[in-house]
Amino acid sequence: MDKKIGIVGLGLIGASIALSLRGKVGEILAVDRDKEVLSIAMDRKIIDRGSTNPEEILRDADIIIFALYPGDIINYILEHKSIWHQDQILMDVAGLKGELVSRIQEELPDVEFVGTHPMAGREVSGIRGAREELFLGSNFIITPTDRNSSDGLVIVRELANTLGVKNIFEMTPVEHDALVAYTSHMPHLLALALVGAYREGSEKIVGRSFLDATRVANINEKLWSELFLMNKGPLVEEIDKLIGELTIFKEKLDNNDKIGLEEKMRTIKAIKERIDK
Amino acid sequence: MDKKIGIVGLGLIGASIALSLRGKVGEILAVDRDKEVLSIAMDRKIIDRGSTNPEEILRDADIIIFALYPGDIINYILEHKSIWHQDQILMDVAGLKGELVSRIQEELPDVEFVGTHPMAGREVSGIRGAREELFLGSNFIITPTDRNSSDGLVIVRELANTLGVKNIFEMTPVEHDALVAYTSHMPHLLALALVGAYREGSEKIVGRSFLDATRVANINEKLWSELFLMNKGPLVEEIDKLIGELTIFKEKLDNNDKIGLEEKMRTIKAIKERIDK
Repeated sequence: MDKKIGIVGLGLIGASIALSLRGKVGEILAVDRDKEVLSIAMDRKIIDRGSTNPEEILRDADIIIFALYPGDIINYILEHKSIWHQDQILMDVAGLKGELVSRIQEELPDVEFVGTHPMAGREVSGIRGAREELFLGSNFIITPTDRNSSDGLVIVRELANTLGVKNIFEMTPVEHDALVAYTSHMPHLLALALVGAYREGSEKIVGRSFLDATRVANINEKLWSELFLMNKGPLVEEIDKLIGELTIFKEKLDNNDKIGLEEKMRTIKAIKERIDK
Repeated sequence: MDKKIGIVGLGLIGASIALSLRGKVGEILAVDRDKEVLSIAMDRKIIDRGSTNPEEILRDADIIIFALYPGDIINYILEHKSIWHQDQILMDVAGLKGELVSRIQEELPDVEFVGTHPMAGREVSGIRGAREELFLGSNFIITPTDRNSSDGLVIVRELANTLGVKNIFEMTPVEHDALVAYTSHMPHLLALALVGAYREGSEKIVGRSFLDATRVANINEKLWSELFLMNKGPLVEEIDKLIGELTIFKEKLDNNDKIGLEEKMRTIKAIKERIDK
């Protein structure tokens, strides 16, 4: 595509987007508050122009991608609202969409803002963790609302395809956040809870099931506290569902109900097969 | 070692033991109730002699390894007690030790029985899943009691080393079962509970954290119902601890307590580092 792409935030995701788009778009313009990060990006030729000052650079962009922490994206877009104009598409790549999309679309009704969530990441952060192939074969969610134009959505889909994603799914921002509470926040919370319930001496006999279940417990606590709190409603609902499941198992154990346990496990295996397909 | 090794049950673990010991022991004698499994084992030359009849074959063995489901091991050893003699060491490889070790040692005081738990496994079962390298670098638990002789324990340790294990730990059967409830049964139960709390449409956006957390949900329900029930006391205690952890997170979310969430996550990360070391 021949569009000029602006990227705000050259962390893992922002810099990986730049790497993935390099040579495939009109121009890559980037803003980061860290001069060293900008000079790495220029030296490695993953961006065409960079600045710490958004005024200088973002007016020229056709599509602007915000790759900051979710809370920071809202503040950033609202603080710099004099920059955005009607020929631009603004999109974010945060892992939560509900509050973010509705706040921005309400406060800036004349700007085209599209919420997206590329389902890709790594356990390392920052521009040094960036990978050109990060989005190859991954899933990409777009959360359109009736404030979006069909032209805008077509361009965002084209951009996602340029990143090399495998599937593009559309859903509402609210549906997205409910699914993320289940598929991402709960695995992280369970990893934390399991380590939190630590039993002395366990390190002698931890095996693969424990290590896999707790892999993500080594967490960026500032980001994840923010994510959990921004998605509090759906997350608390999922916690209650999970406690409900544990309680069912506990009751069957208390009743020595072997048949019931086997039935429950068979039902769960059938769901698991459907998810894995 | 030059001992004759008898293996009862050529499933994943029994057949992997045979593969690991092949060429490193005097002879490998195996019993399985399935003739086809025995003929696979003979054809692939992973055992020297096999029979469906334990009377025919196990009297010759110096060490007999019982690789059946935990409940079946107790029954098997007690049913065939006329076979065992004082020049033999009997050992099992079940994932639970408390009831099993105490029942057998009480009912057969003249037989040397050593409880062991090789910490290794795969998601596939049966002789076709067996791997020569299954125990390489893994942990191996021995649960000695005052009914065991030091000679017997030395021989069992030698056998474990022949399998290629990395660490051998000794602990009481009761301590073993409490640790297993935490490090193995809980990760499996949480994988089951998370899949059991399935939210429609999730398969669109599952990522690596979800797949890792639920990997073991594809469970052998007969074996795991038995394991859970045999370890009911410690497991219910762990479920309560886990629900307690989830409730702490839920309260901090309800109170919008970002500082408290970050502190909790930092504490957990510190424990995780200790476990991973």
